[in-house]
Amino acid sequence: MASAAETDAMRRALRLARNGPRGLNPQVGAVILSPSGVVLAEGFHRGAGTPHAEVDALSQLHPGEARGTTAVVTLEPCNHTGRTGPCAVALLEAGVARVVYALDDPTDAAAGGAARLRAGGVDVEAGLERESAEELIRDWVHLQRTGRPRVTVKWAQSLDGRAAAADGTSQWITGSAARRDVHVRRAAADAILAGTGTVLADDPALTARDADGTLLEQQPVPVIVGETRVPEDAAVHRHPKTPLFFATHDLAAVLDDLGTRGIQSVFVEGGPTLESALLREGLADEVLMYVAPVLLGGSRLALGELGVPSITAARRLEVASIDVLGDDIRVVARPVHDTQGES
Amino acid sequence: MASAAETDAMRRALRLARNGPRGLNPQVGAVILSPSGVVLAEGFHRGAGTPHAEVDALSQLHPGEARGTTAVVTLEPCNHTGRTGPCAVALLEAGVARVVYALDDPTDAAAGGAARLRAGGVDVEAGLERESAEELIRDWVHLQRTGRPRVTVKWAQSLDGRAAAADGTSQWITGSAARRDVHVRRAAADAILAGTGTVLADDPALTARDADGTLLEQQPVPVIVGETRVPEDAAVHRHPKTPLFFATHDLAAVLDDLGTRGIQSVFVEGGPTLESALLREGLADEVLMYVAPVLLGGSRLALGELGVPSITAARRLEVASIDVLGDDIRVVARPVHDTQGES
Ligand SMILES: NC(=O)c1ccc[n+]([C@@H]2O[C@H](COP(=O)([O-])OP(=O)(O)OC[C@H]3O[C@@H](n4cnc5c(N)ncnc54)[C@H](OP(=O)(O)O)[C@@H]3O)[C@@H](O)[C@H]2O)c1
Ligand SMILES: NC(=O)c1ccc[n+]([C@@H]2O[C@H](COP(=O)([O-])OP(=O)(O)OC[C@H]3O[C@@H](n4cnc5c(N)ncnc54)[C@H](OP(=O)(O)O)[C@@H]3O)[C@@H](O)[C@H]2O)c1
Repeated sequence: MASAAETDAMRRALRLARNGPRGLNPQVGAVILSPSGVVLAEGFHRGAGTPHAEVDALSQLHPGEARGTTAVVTLEPCNHTGRTGPCAVALLEAGVARVVYALDDPTDAAAGGAARLRAGGVDVEAGLERESAEELIRDWVHLQRTGRPRVTVKWAQSLDGRAAAADGTSQWITGSAARRDVHVRRAAADAILAGTGTVLADDPALTARDADGTLLEQQPVPVIVGETRVPEDAAVHRHPKTPLFFATHDLAAVLDDLGTRGIQSVFVEGGPTLESALLREGLADEVLMYVAPVLLGGSRLALGELGVPSITAARRLEVASIDVLGDDIRVVARPVHDTQGES
Repeated sequence: MASAAETDAMRRALRLARNGPRGLNPQVGAVILSPSGVVLAEGFHRGAGTPHAEVDALSQLHPGEARGTTAVVTLEPCNHTGRTGPCAVALLEAGVARVVYALDDPTDAAAGGAARLRAGGVDVEAGLERESAEELIRDWVHLQRTGRPRVTVKWAQSLDGRAAAADGTSQWITGSAARRDVHVRRAAADAILAGTGTVLADDPALTARDADGTLLEQQPVPVIVGETRVPEDAAVHRHPKTPLFFATHDLAAVLDDLGTRGIQSVFVEGGPTLESALLREGLADEVLMYVAPVLLGGSRLALGELGVPSITAARRLEVASIDVLGDDIRVVARPVHDTQGES
């Protein structure tokens, strides 16, 4: 059983973890507690090539000070010699008496830290605040497993599946609450993806903004896919993050490339051609629909061809949530992959 | 204040009312109570040309027996000399001391009964169980006001607004809970409407059925609209109610005609062409969508052209309810008519 001090320390470690960057390595936080539960040191991981969170925290103690302490870490200490040595060994050598961690290391290469600690006589407890830790590194785990970012395909549509009226107008098909929600989710994503069609048609800023237009602190990297050249004066060039351009239709290759850059999550903002291609090719991990309570009819569809010849081949989704935002309906759903276990 | 006996009597009267037919006249029920609250007689209206509910109930008493009693009626006693005399006068002449009714008469011609009774010295109380009475004759009120049945346009679609896959297959786009719900609503409607396109493509029975295929007790009149002749051996000819065929595209005229027949509500079951026309022409009072958690893409749209040139002309709906039925989402909504107050 974890003590109240350990639970507090784990929550603190989860917050500390977020100070580190999202990238090729997971966000991890650590707190060292004295036997009586006093916080002696804190640490977090600052990205590939820098010390892991536990080692960062230990480094703040005097030699010998860690002896008999408890290390509270959001992720199972690694057992893997990479650019840094195994954290399990560092903890053993420092003389830590107890280790409390939230989440088992989900990677094969790094796992085994808990066993090594136990073998070295350390009291190990796993699973404290596990769900929060899972949530924290969910996208990183996805990247580890698939080599690609987690892809959310977002669109706004009428109840009858249209993205715009006959003349192409669509602003604003959905209301302000839905728009706010979109910007919050843009800010939470590592990259924002759009096709050249949308960029040429709408010249979108692809930034995450406040209701009053102010840029939010976090901004996704804009990624534009398509062979058409984007004009020099396009708004995307003024994005706070340098945009990436992929002059290809090979979307799997684009996602692989983003994965190697440590992009853990991608928010796809259109248009219909790009989004349909991602769904058709089974590259979407999540669907995010904002449905306005209007009917539009006509030919400006939010999605085009999905390659569904017959109803038995319908692309089935598992609905995660249905909420009302202002006048609009938000649906979050995950494609059900018959062949893959991953969703 | 109504007594407990009067409340019980009103609930009984509401049930009695449903024994009468839905048609050109409203369903009305009545109960006569002795001064001590004992039920002396019950009545309901059996349709145009037959006695009104109050008169039906009074007719079961011996001469003089109604003197000093309380009449409990679901609708304000009429003040209108039609094929029968005004009920207000009949109640006065019978010597009824008190009248409790649920709903004011919503028609100009018949209203004024309460005033007439009061002028005759009768103690009158209005509004007991008003909501139930309103619900009971809602469609009749609509018919009275507009001359047309209340029109519910129902369809099943994928999240992206498709009614079928590329090859036309759509069975079963939605699940069993949604289908059961449809059949219950079919049974509650006076007529079920379909275009010749659907009849020729699917040869639907247009009956209201149980999960095991058994016909429900109530069946809507099947109504087929379109100039194409429906084959002699079409399933609709075996419907328990004689089908009506309208070889026209003038949907307003069809609804007017159904109105003159006392059809108070119409359930429209397809297909896309007919439903789009009804929505485009502003003839739908209610939209009922069953949305399956699938994506289909392609060109088989649940709705076609709605005549919306620009986003400002979007056909806005007021969402009445969003529910989950099995895996599907049911949306009930009402078109917002900018010019009409009626919805
Ligand atoms: N309602 C909404 O939520 C929403 C959101 C965004 C956009 N929109 C509207 O959508 C319209 C633009 O639609 P769109 O479909 O043309 O835009 P799009 O999907 O943004 O861009 C289409 C382009 O993407 C490129 N592309 C990259 N990978 C592809 C692949 N695998 N398959 C096919 N094309 C690929 C192609 O560019 P190249 O031809 O250059 O190679 C293609 O022409 C605009 O009118 C915009 O207003 C609506
Ligand atoms: N998913 C669902 O909920 C659902 C429900 C029903 C049907 N469906 C599918 O829909 C397909 C049939 O579609 P559909 O659109 O051809 O069928 P439809 O709407 O049932 O019938 C179209 C026909 O209705 C007649 N019509 C009457 N008034 C009209 C008007 N004001 N404007 C235009 N036409 C009018 C015309 O017949 P005439 O040409 O004879 O004059 C027209 O060809 C079938 O494949 C069926 O399986 C799907």
